[in-house]
Amino acid sequence: MRKLQMVFSFCIAASAVMAQSTDSAMFKRIADDVFTNSTGYENLRILCKKVGPRLSGSPQAAAAVQETYKMMKAMGADTVYLQECMVPHWVRGAKESALLVDAKGKTFSLNICALGNSVGTGKQGIKAEVIEVRSFKELEQLGVAGVKGKIVFYNFPMNPTNVETFRSYGEAGQFRGRGPSMAAKYGAVGAMVRSLASNIDDYPHTGTTTYNDSFPKIPAIAVSTRHAEYISAELKKNKTMQLYFRTECEMLPDVKSHNVIAEIRGTELPNEVITVGGHLDSWDLAEGAHDDGAGCIQSMEIIRVYKKLGIKPKRTIRVVMFMNEENGLRGGRKYAEVAATEKDKKFIFALESDAGGFTPRAFGFTAEAPVLTKLRNWAPLFKPYGVYEFADGGGGADIGPLRPLGTTLSGLRPDSQRYFDHHHAANDTFEMVSKRELELGAINMVLLLYVVDQYGL
Amino acid sequence: MRKLQMVFSFCIAASAVMAQSTDSAMFKRIADDVFTNSTGYENLRILCKKVGPRLSGSPQAAAAVQETYKMMKAMGADTVYLQECMVPHWVRGAKESALLVDAKGKTFSLNICALGNSVGTGKQGIKAEVIEVRSFKELEQLGVAGVKGKIVFYNFPMNPTNVETFRSYGEAGQFRGRGPSMAAKYGAVGAMVRSLASNIDDYPHTGTTTYNDSFPKIPAIAVSTRHAEYISAELKKNKTMQLYFRTECEMLPDVKSHNVIAEIRGTELPNEVITVGGHLDSWDLAEGAHDDGAGCIQSMEIIRVYKKLGIKPKRTIRVVMFMNEENGLRGGRKYAEVAATEKDKKFIFALESDAGGFTPRAFGFTAEAPVLTKLRNWAPLFKPYGVYEFADGGGGADIGPLRPLGTTLSGLRPDSQRYFDHHHAANDTFEMVSKRELELGAINMVLLLYVVDQYGL
Repeated sequence: MRKLQMVFSFCIAASAVMAQSTDSAMFKRIADDVFTNSTGYENLRILCKKVGPRLSGSPQAAAAVQETYKMMKAMGADTVYLQECMVPHWVRGAKESALLVDAKGKTFSLNICALGNSVGTGKQGIKAEVIEVRSFKELEQLGVAGVKGKIVFYNFPMNPTNVETFRSYGEAGQFRGRGPSMAAKYGAVGAMVRSLASNIDDYPHTGTTTYNDSFPKIPAIAVSTRHAEYISAELKKNKTMQLYFRTECEMLPDVKSHNVIAEIRGTELPNEVITVGGHLDSWDLAEGAHDDGAGCIQSMEIIRVYKKLGIKPKRTIRVVMFMNEENGLRGGRKYAEVAATEKDKKFIFALESDAGGFTPRAFGFTAEAPVLTKLRNWAPLFKPYGVYEFADGGGGADIGPLRPLGTTLSGLRPDSQRYFDHHHAANDTFEMVSKRELELGAINMVLLLYVVDQYGL
Repeated sequence: MRKLQMVFSFCIAASAVMAQSTDSAMFKRIADDVFTNSTGYENLRILCKKVGPRLSGSPQAAAAVQETYKMMKAMGADTVYLQECMVPHWVRGAKESALLVDAKGKTFSLNICALGNSVGTGKQGIKAEVIEVRSFKELEQLGVAGVKGKIVFYNFPMNPTNVETFRSYGEAGQFRGRGPSMAAKYGAVGAMVRSLASNIDDYPHTGTTTYNDSFPKIPAIAVSTRHAEYISAELKKNKTMQLYFRTECEMLPDVKSHNVIAEIRGTELPNEVITVGGHLDSWDLAEGAHDDGAGCIQSMEIIRVYKKLGIKPKRTIRVVMFMNEENGLRGGRKYAEVAATEKDKKFIFALESDAGGFTPRAFGFTAEAPVLTKLRNWAPLFKPYGVYEFADGGGGADIGPLRPLGTTLSGLRPDSQRYFDHHHAANDTFEMVSKRELELGAINMVLLLYVVDQYGL
């Protein structure tokens, strides 16, 4: 028995080694082809420069649907189709402005932008005393007496000491998300949030705020980190200062939009579906190069490279350009909702790239332990391509709604040092993306999809 | 005996675990301090914007000596001093230009620059038929009959399929280095090299060419990758085309310059010297932000952070700003030459950062096997800071001359995807450096020096 087990173990080990060696050769073929022939960088240029900012409901979002449909058709997907979904239609409106006004009436113009989904001030704007806080606790302590009639300024910097900047983003993000309603709870008339940025510069960074229906909806803006520092310094010298700001943003009725879905049908197990995607919408201030043009472009690479190299997947590969991640997640929800009705199909795996087109370092997985163990067996093959960790935890906002279907989720984790210098700001431009970094991320994504398709989970 | 061995092994293991846990806490203190208090990014701005391009022998190189002397003084080094060395003094001279001229006399202006250390054409320039080759073998096959009186155009692109771009640089670099003399061997009157760049753009990238004294020294230039592609396409349509170019560069007599050396004296083993550095000179076309302002700035971080946190090294730490890496290596040679005379000292370890201020991924080591094994025991502590590999092989040009003294060499290996978009070109600017990436590299360098200092080799 012992001997038999040994022989059996040896056979398994030997076949694993053989498979890994074959896979290693295929990995190299795939990587070489992407580095040599990818059209991704030029397609990203189209998305950023020809289409441009593409907030849900905008004409540019509709153009992005058309462009990516064409791109995936041209790459030779078996089928490309649109999946309808209704999306929120928030518009920024006329030019925004803000002034810090001292006791003598001297003004200082601030770099600001309205937070996504926020209400506007109307043409007249609002003017009130500004009060700085660094925590919700401070806000509570001020209470109605200290806050009523004022504009609350949340000045919570992203913690620079986390190597993973997403962690600092999570910590600071609560003020953009819940801050305006929390301020309204105590009678504030407006809210201003320090931009969620890891650097000090002049770009205001937008992003969604989420109103709590129990409180009045007050206008809310983000201010550049440099000006957040400036205001804070001024308030130390001069405790009472007024802030004037004007935003004319508003939420219009929902409009029809689409996810764009391309498929390569599986040759052996076509009903097992592997999903890969990024989100097609971006904020209106930015070209959305890193967020998330890069993820869209990387996701479609598998179509081009599979067709080019003649790789026929065993399972069905679905590449999805998700609509409306930024201010509604309607595309991701719609995709999962429809998937739940496709009873003949099994959505075994979904991969998202939505952390920027930077050099890849890891994949994160939301998976049952045995699945994660299986995946990790393949990790050493990825090291020559810069991915050295298959981490526990991860996925992406758009694929999250698939999890109740039992889908294993994965997210590409690029290096995060630069992401929040650009995220949701006007400097998230095509020029900030490195062609090789973009391609190296795409390579690792194709490689991961390749092993999942070949061996299942 | 068995039992004793076990107890002994346990004690070793336990003390290693305890040491690692203490080190891990110190690592976090160091990292937090760099991310929070580093002056490196602002110092890099001074080096790039106030000093600017600083080729050996230039007034800016002298200014860089003064500025970095001041910086390291201000950081509280026990001593800062200048180490004299003579350096080559190559100057680019008046504005360079090149024209591609077709059979009808129609001209096309090319983005070019003279190669470093090359001779100029003189004011009149040179004009000759241009002949494209992609290898030295092609050149040989053309021979004198095909080359004499012409300008040889080496159009060898960097291989995009190497994940490590330095490998492709090494392969393509021979044409810049030996190409002009090889062309002269067959009677060419000039040489033009495709820029050693990993992307397609309009920047010509300079860099040293090395003449072989057996052949005439002919003028040599680099052309931007975009124009290299253009010329190649034009030559396919029209085999005989003329190239005109004019450069007025020349090599002047050697001048006096300096390495800048700062020390923190060791408290227990002051005669064991740990060297860390980058090179202070840059090409004249570039601010030298990544090459190698970043490495200089990262190297001095240990002085600031040790003083700030009150860490007293056991061994002596020497931070060296090496002069003249780009076109002579005189600073590195001088440092090793002097070190060889310091008979009371042991130069146990040297670390260089000269691969750009990008996010760190690995260290490479030139070390005896047992030393490498010892170093690798510490590798897991670095993973939270993005360094996941202690690789065999590596160092840096400036510290290379220390190797005959038995010094273990190490080089920081940042992610290399973007480096050759900027290397030796006018777009190697301060704006291309991410503050967090620069700091993360500096953190890992300080951490490595910390363990080497604490535990020896």
